[in-house]
Amino acid sequence: MTSQELFRNILDRKSFLCVGLDPEISRLPLSVADADDPIFEFNRRIIDATHRYTAAYKPNFAFYESYGQKGMAALDKTVRYINKLDTNIFIIADAKRGDIGNTSKMYARAVFAEMPFDAVTVAPYMGEDSVTPFLSYPGKWAVILALTSNRGADDFQYHTEKGQRLFERVLTVSQRWGTTDNIMYVVGATRAEMLADIRKIVPDHFLLVPGVGAQGGSLEEVVKYGMNDRCGLLVNSSRGIIYADSTERFAEVAGEKAREMQEEMAGYLAEKFKV
Amino acid sequence: MTSQELFRNILDRKSFLCVGLDPEISRLPLSVADADDPIFEFNRRIIDATHRYTAAYKPNFAFYESYGQKGMAALDKTVRYINKLDTNIFIIADAKRGDIGNTSKMYARAVFAEMPFDAVTVAPYMGEDSVTPFLSYPGKWAVILALTSNRGADDFQYHTEKGQRLFERVLTVSQRWGTTDNIMYVVGATRAEMLADIRKIVPDHFLLVPGVGAQGGSLEEVVKYGMNDRCGLLVNSSRGIIYADSTERFAEVAGEKAREMQEEMAGYLAEKFKV
Repeated sequence: MTSQELFRNILDRKSFLCVGLDPEISRLPLSVADADDPIFEFNRRIIDATHRYTAAYKPNFAFYESYGQKGMAALDKTVRYINKLDTNIFIIADAKRGDIGNTSKMYARAVFAEMPFDAVTVAPYMGEDSVTPFLSYPGKWAVILALTSNRGADDFQYHTEKGQRLFERVLTVSQRWGTTDNIMYVVGATRAEMLADIRKIVPDHFLLVPGVGAQGGSLEEVVKYGMNDRCGLLVNSSRGIIYADSTERFAEVAGEKAREMQEEMAGYLAEKFKV
Repeated sequence: MTSQELFRNILDRKSFLCVGLDPEISRLPLSVADADDPIFEFNRRIIDATHRYTAAYKPNFAFYESYGQKGMAALDKTVRYINKLDTNIFIIADAKRGDIGNTSKMYARAVFAEMPFDAVTVAPYMGEDSVTPFLSYPGKWAVILALTSNRGADDFQYHTEKGQRLFERVLTVSQRWGTTDNIMYVVGATRAEMLADIRKIVPDHFLLVPGVGAQGGSLEEVVKYGMNDRCGLLVNSSRGIIYADSTERFAEVAGEKAREMQEEMAGYLAEKFKV
């Protein structure tokens, strides 16, 4: 998917919402926990209830790997389910991969050839040859960590050389490795005011913004500081949607929460793009 | 395994060699490629031929994930095979994981509860809460990337604030999160001269050193600058051993290559520890 196609899908769907699919068996309601494949069953019901309101889904690999091979089978089934439902939905493998060149090449194969993901999150610590293998699949994306939403972001991401913070260096250097059609960046909503600084370095790139909702970020602020003239935002919510309710009504409530976010987003899109 | 136990195993085995298990189906000889489970069959034959000479194995997850669920099943089988063969062999999940706290917790569960790994490699970019979940399993280790062996290491790892390079900050800050019994660091052999600087910051930690062999690092230099009074080194070789020969003799030749390295290591250990 190109950035232009992603932008068009966002306008069509009136949404730049990304729903994080992070299933935890211990949190699943009984009717799901007893299913043959509880992880997939949970995801399927969440997807059925939310897909009208979303532009993207982001399964986090940790939640599948932690259930071993059964978990990975459920992940595979989930991605194919979304893809079959609607090929315009952007699917992000949230895997934070990154290794030396010949190894990243294998990770790229895993998410783009073995599974039909559109994008994968990548950690930048190991530099260029750890990222570029993800950029060689036409229409596929690397989503590079820049400034993350967690507390630990303070430990290294602000390390400053000659006035340039590490996350700024990551943005500056890594944008040379690809284009606005195959690189996007992770910028946490919990640091929304930083989005203004970040937009000076990457005015045209899409940003994947976690941290709205459960982690405390504000959608209004993210839009204010981060939206560009092709939207340029995918805003993720995981726990705030999928665990908004822990009863048998979980899917229905997830759908309501997704719709609320989508309606707020539709307002911002209408204002900016007169649609 | 504690660092003391690891040291004792190294002395017993007269080896601090770690063999990287990175199977690529396209490189496997015919008799293996035609097996029911070619990846496991390749690993099994490599392990049988090399385990007398090694202290550790390091399967790189990318090589298994790229073959989908079959690959992950072969990985699982491989780890259990090593564990059954000899519980004193240290097994490292080379997965370069790292995500926000609740997610890293799931990754830790995947490698330490679902599979019997002793350690997992971790990328430090996201800071403390991305690493500490790996430290809560008694006897298990996080192997944190400090200075990697690849070309891309130059892109960010030398970013310097007030004379402190990023990899030095990683070493300085992260050692507070755990102990010498649950944290080790990745330092590439291709930068062996940096080991002297690194030993000033982490004199007592074990270092996992990739890059000897195929990537050009020298074992002698690594020992000279990196060995401490409990050895403190696991030196990895992957391609230099497992792909030393591409014919039906691959396992035999891998065994010979591993033995050559082990013999050189035995010499250094004898000199330093009078064993």
